[in-house]
Amino acid sequence: MAGNTFGNIYRLSSFGESHGEAIGGVVDGCPPNIELDLNAIQKELDRRKPGQSAIVTQRKENDEVEFLSGIFEGKTTGTPIGFIVKNTNQKSKDYSHITDVYRPSHADYVYEKKYGIRDYRGGGRSSARETISRVVAGAIARQIIPEIKINAFVSSVGDIFIDKPYQALDFSLTESNDVRCPDLVTAEKMEAYIKEIRKEGDTVGGTITCVIQNVPVGLGEPVFDKLHAELGKAMLSINAVKGFEYGSGFCGAKMKGSEHNDLFNPDGSTKSNLSGGIQGGISNGMDIYFRVAFKPVATIMKEQDTINSKGEMVKMQGKGRHDPCVVPRAVPIVEAMAAMVIVDFYLLNNIFKA
Amino acid sequence: MAGNTFGNIYRLSSFGESHGEAIGGVVDGCPPNIELDLNAIQKELDRRKPGQSAIVTQRKENDEVEFLSGIFEGKTTGTPIGFIVKNTNQKSKDYSHITDVYRPSHADYVYEKKYGIRDYRGGGRSSARETISRVVAGAIARQIIPEIKINAFVSSVGDIFIDKPYQALDFSLTESNDVRCPDLVTAEKMEAYIKEIRKEGDTVGGTITCVIQNVPVGLGEPVFDKLHAELGKAMLSINAVKGFEYGSGFCGAKMKGSEHNDLFNPDGSTKSNLSGGIQGGISNGMDIYFRVAFKPVATIMKEQDTINSKGEMVKMQGKGRHDPCVVPRAVPIVEAMAAMVIVDFYLLNNIFKA
Amino acid sequence: MAGNTFGNIYRLSSFGESHGEAIGGVVDGCPPNIELDLNAIQKELDRRKPGQSAIVTQRKENDEVEFLSGIFEGKTTGTPIGFIVKNTNQKSKDYSHITDVYRPSHADYVYEKKYGIRDYRGGGRSSARETISRVVAGAIARQIIPEIKINAFVSSVGDIFIDKPYQALDFSLTESNDVRCPDLVTAEKMEAYIKEIRKEGDTVGGTITCVIQNVPVGLGEPVFDKLHAELGKAMLSINAVKGFEYGSGFCGAKMKGSEHNDLFNPDGSTKSNLSGGIQGGISNGMDIYFRVAFKPVATIMKEQDTINSKGEMVKMQGKGRHDPCVVPRAVPIVEAMAAMVIVDFYLLNNIFKA
Amino acid sequence: MAGNTFGNIYRLSSFGESHGEAIGGVVDGCPPNIELDLNAIQKELDRRKPGQSAIVTQRKENDEVEFLSGIFEGKTTGTPIGFIVKNTNQKSKDYSHITDVYRPSHADYVYEKKYGIRDYRGGGRSSARETISRVVAGAIARQIIPEIKINAFVSSVGDIFIDKPYQALDFSLTESNDVRCPDLVTAEKMEAYIKEIRKEGDTVGGTITCVIQNVPVGLGEPVFDKLHAELGKAMLSINAVKGFEYGSGFCGAKMKGSEHNDLFNPDGSTKSNLSGGIQGGISNGMDIYFRVAFKPVATIMKEQDTINSKGEMVKMQGKGRHDPCVVPRAVPIVEAMAAMVIVDFYLLNNIFKA
Repeated sequence: MAGNTFGNIYRLSSFGESHGEAIGGVVDGCPPNIELDLNAIQKELDRRKPGQSAIVTQRKENDEVEFLSGIFEGKTTGTPIGFIVKNTNQKSKDYSHITDVYRPSHADYVYEKKYGIRDYRGGGRSSARETISRVVAGAIARQIIPEIKINAFVSSVGDIFIDKPYQALDFSLTESNDVRCPDLVTAEKMEAYIKEIRKEGDTVGGTITCVIQNVPVGLGEPVFDKLHAELGKAMLSINAVKGFEYGSGFCGAKMKGSEHNDLFNPDGSTKSNLSGGIQGGISNGMDIYFRVAFKPVATIMKEQDTINSKGEMVKMQGKGRHDPCVVPRAVPIVEAMAAMVIVDFYLLNNIFKA
Repeated sequence: MAGNTFGNIYRLSSFGESHGEAIGGVVDGCPPNIELDLNAIQKELDRRKPGQSAIVTQRKENDEVEFLSGIFEGKTTGTPIGFIVKNTNQKSKDYSHITDVYRPSHADYVYEKKYGIRDYRGGGRSSARETISRVVAGAIARQIIPEIKINAFVSSVGDIFIDKPYQALDFSLTESNDVRCPDLVTAEKMEAYIKEIRKEGDTVGGTITCVIQNVPVGLGEPVFDKLHAELGKAMLSINAVKGFEYGSGFCGAKMKGSEHNDLFNPDGSTKSNLSGGIQGGISNGMDIYFRVAFKPVATIMKEQDTINSKGEMVKMQGKGRHDPCVVPRAVPIVEAMAAMVIVDFYLLNNIFKA
Repeated sequence: MAGNTFGNIYRLSSFGESHGEAIGGVVDGCPPNIELDLNAIQKELDRRKPGQSAIVTQRKENDEVEFLSGIFEGKTTGTPIGFIVKNTNQKSKDYSHITDVYRPSHADYVYEKKYGIRDYRGGGRSSARETISRVVAGAIARQIIPEIKINAFVSSVGDIFIDKPYQALDFSLTESNDVRCPDLVTAEKMEAYIKEIRKEGDTVGGTITCVIQNVPVGLGEPVFDKLHAELGKAMLSINAVKGFEYGSGFCGAKMKGSEHNDLFNPDGSTKSNLSGGIQGGISNGMDIYFRVAFKPVATIMKEQDTINSKGEMVKMQGKGRHDPCVVPRAVPIVEAMAAMVIVDFYLLNNIFKA
Repeated sequence: MAGNTFGNIYRLSSFGESHGEAIGGVVDGCPPNIELDLNAIQKELDRRKPGQSAIVTQRKENDEVEFLSGIFEGKTTGTPIGFIVKNTNQKSKDYSHITDVYRPSHADYVYEKKYGIRDYRGGGRSSARETISRVVAGAIARQIIPEIKINAFVSSVGDIFIDKPYQALDFSLTESNDVRCPDLVTAEKMEAYIKEIRKEGDTVGGTITCVIQNVPVGLGEPVFDKLHAELGKAMLSINAVKGFEYGSGFCGAKMKGSEHNDLFNPDGSTKSNLSGGIQGGISNGMDIYFRVAFKPVATIMKEQDTINSKGEMVKMQGKGRHDPCVVPRAVPIVEAMAAMVIVDFYLLNNIFKA
């Protein structure tokens, strides 16, 4: 109810502030007897961690996950998996200049109004460090359903976008560049643009596209818990996300029924896939794909006018080490959330199959 | 878990197929001592009902709601509100031609694969008649928080869209035309276009914009149950929805931080509102606004190729009485879902205020 | 959250007051393709209905269930099952004498204090008529798991009790007498005693024992949702219940470990079964048995002192037609709640088996 | 769903096995701005820890709680409180003799059958060390409602019981003796008996009574989430519990209505309190009291016959350091669970008061 639990059958309860002792969580509902590849989990954390490349924040955080329960002799036991990632490089001093100041388009103001108290250190719970728990839980989720392929990638940065359908892309190239864009020509342009933006002391938004393949028919629980509704909620719960569309998305709203309908092949697959792999809220066995919009990071290095807690106008300027563009590091987070949603419905779907 | 319950504190459990006895639901968690205006609830149902204008389906359904519990001497009692709307005009014959056929871009195929059984009468549970329960529950929700204003309207049909910010619109005009577009010049174009599309035997998509005003600061439960994440899920759970964006939305993904940040006024309000009234998942007291994309209705009057349950290719053509464009009738549904989300967080927020 | 939903996978949302239009509910999570025997469901309602014998209340209520959705051509479809039972014989006049009076050991006082409003007609939502929804949902549940046998019976009335282990009883005799006690000699004594009590204008308490056989190993979700913890909650949620014990129960608290331990047979069954079929919160394949204590009905025909809503002392005397002893009619309710708990865990257990 | 989360508004998600890295949990829904007395929390852990007296297990475990989030400058922030208690003194060697053996009346057999894997070290998740998380979460809960007094005490051990109503007891004496029985004469007998039982290599059961005072009218959510139903579930979820009764309990089932009814005083309080402070599932402002039955500890030092995983009969004898009687250490656990239930309803009740 208080907002820190995600999922029904496969369920993450998350905790931790950016400058507290640790970020962590409890995964309940993981099936037993899964042989966990702990390195693969750590690798996902490494994909989201700061300091990994020239175009992300240069903070150094090792973000090593420690598992505290639920695993015995390398296998899951069916009991809850508790884990923590210690906060080792948090410099609370970096935030002393904002103790009393509400940063524009940050959550400082609303957190203080809602809770009547403010943990001003690095955004506290509203920090993107919170997504560490998501990445761990998502990485475990993926190992439950290794046959289902989840590939996210950066599809646009500012006005620069991939001008191809996802079918024309080679996902194995996503990790070959710092932007995480599998179209290498576009990736180069994006990277140059991000560097330019950073030099300006500014930030820029972008989009991530995610493709999920090999999903069995039948996942999703209409009428409220439709598969795409849960995917949408999952994505919108990620910091900085402003929009979600799947299949034809907003373009579909301009089309005619005769253009939009996906005609069947005799085997139940469809000739086109504007439905995005989901019909009536239930997976139909075709590729699921969706797109997520991220706003530009709110912390910029330019001077801005803002207010303090007394309602006085003050000047402020971003300090510390921040991302000029959030999407490269958000790719593993999108994948993690998608994995949690898919596993949740996958397990739920077993109920009536057994 | 099985997908027919929405909300946490204010909770709707919905039931009913298009051609069964009745559509209905149970609203649990409605505060006691609310004087219910039953006419206002019926009026919302009338806004969504078929046959109300020349540009929607010409089926005649009266859709009168009967309340069975939870109301005593005109007031809510705090106990669950059970209600039904009888299905009076359902002609099962109309669907006899598709008993065995999977309609393209409908839920027929996935329902049969998921449940191993198919109620072929009018789409069964996947029919848009299911949204009747949403409209009733949403109309009750609105009466709990009359001070909060929720206005949805049709913002585009096909390529025709309102070319103004919502602040330039007069919401009192929304109901003045059949399209439910408050910009009358645009409304006229939309109406003409929908009639043309219908004449072609085709259908067309559109978007609905929703504006929520007078929301107190503090609604939303990060990190997973962010206010916009729940709004997004609510909207995506409506039939035919393909996308959701709030505030700057997908446009925000193209912007720079220096352009996108909403600077504060001394009283905590913001000069711009690209955040869409929500920061860090919590309402900040500014207007909340979002946009929802609807695909074109899948049932068209043109002949289409499709398959039957034996995997044989067959020809089919839409019969019966269907909407050429879903958005005019979806306006009250969008408002209802928004109302349920807002009330749920509103009540939850009381917990720590008392 | 507001207390009118029971279960996780197999979930009943219940509504209805004793003197409103109808009692009803929504069952969500029922597996598809179950051929429902509707007569068997009605039969369970008949077992709980008033006026069925000389030792229960003489009110006449037919309590006929109408199904509104979720069933097509005799089979469940996997969509929610909505149902209602109309209130046909409710005489609100019977309650006019208590409009303003709080009856001792009834819920009148607390409902008014909690909700700030009182539906004084026959107890409103706190009436035992509410259990109608439970009986319907439980009767459906039993048809999902016909192989699991659930038998409840009256094990004591006042000081009269069955002095045999349940293994010595023939459950087929439970319905042979009005008390629902399978030990016929004891049944006769109980019946005579209840008639005597009724003549006195008094009421008396009793206990019900329930035996569940053929449960597979593995139901129950430690550490909080242990099988017996959910059974206990289910039973304690029934009107008038004051206690629950399973297996050795309160007697077990007097025993030594060397006496209490259930030693294994080579096949994993146990020689004794003081554990009551549940170890560590998980079914072990042995018979599950538990006992439920019901207090005497609060409405007596003798004059009592009480207060009205102004805090004035007033005299009152029960009117209307009430049960001298609640346990005979509570037998099908205990079975229904047990069935819902078992089905819920049964379906949940499928998740990790598939 | 997988059983390791307790509560709705105030919610504990628990993890940890007896011989893993740590026991811990996440408390979500704790109101902000509570000044936490961390020593008081540690003190509750000390009340449950092994080795604290001559009549409990002599294992040495320090059980020091570390808080990882949700607290800033001594106050709760409204964000989730993550905590761990490291397992420092677990000797896995002690369990090497049961790797392959199912201990009678333990959870070994059912865990292996349910999960298909067994963490044989000290019972794994079924170990009573799991209750550490409950005690921490309960100790926090008590600080949210300091005005509500929760006092549990040992009311019987074997056949020895306190022969007085709780009103005649001085709860300040509960901690004055190792048994946690506030009646000192009885306490002495209990202690002598437990020592005798331990000398025999045997164990013995007992009961705990809990009294909750100063509860406001209105807590509890009928019809399913009645206050006593949730208290019952909470207690039954504690290891070794076999029964729960509140107010008149099983004795009430023998009484007449004319004896059992609690007559009102003009102020709404009642002259007697056989209802146990709860009417219709809602607190009525009177003392809440209930009794919990604990079976004897299953691990005895006498030789027992049992089976191994191959179904072979083997001899086994308890090793390690175990409790001869569980109730003295279970007193803080009962109080903790009661506190969590009360806080949960207390917060929920605020929703409709604000």
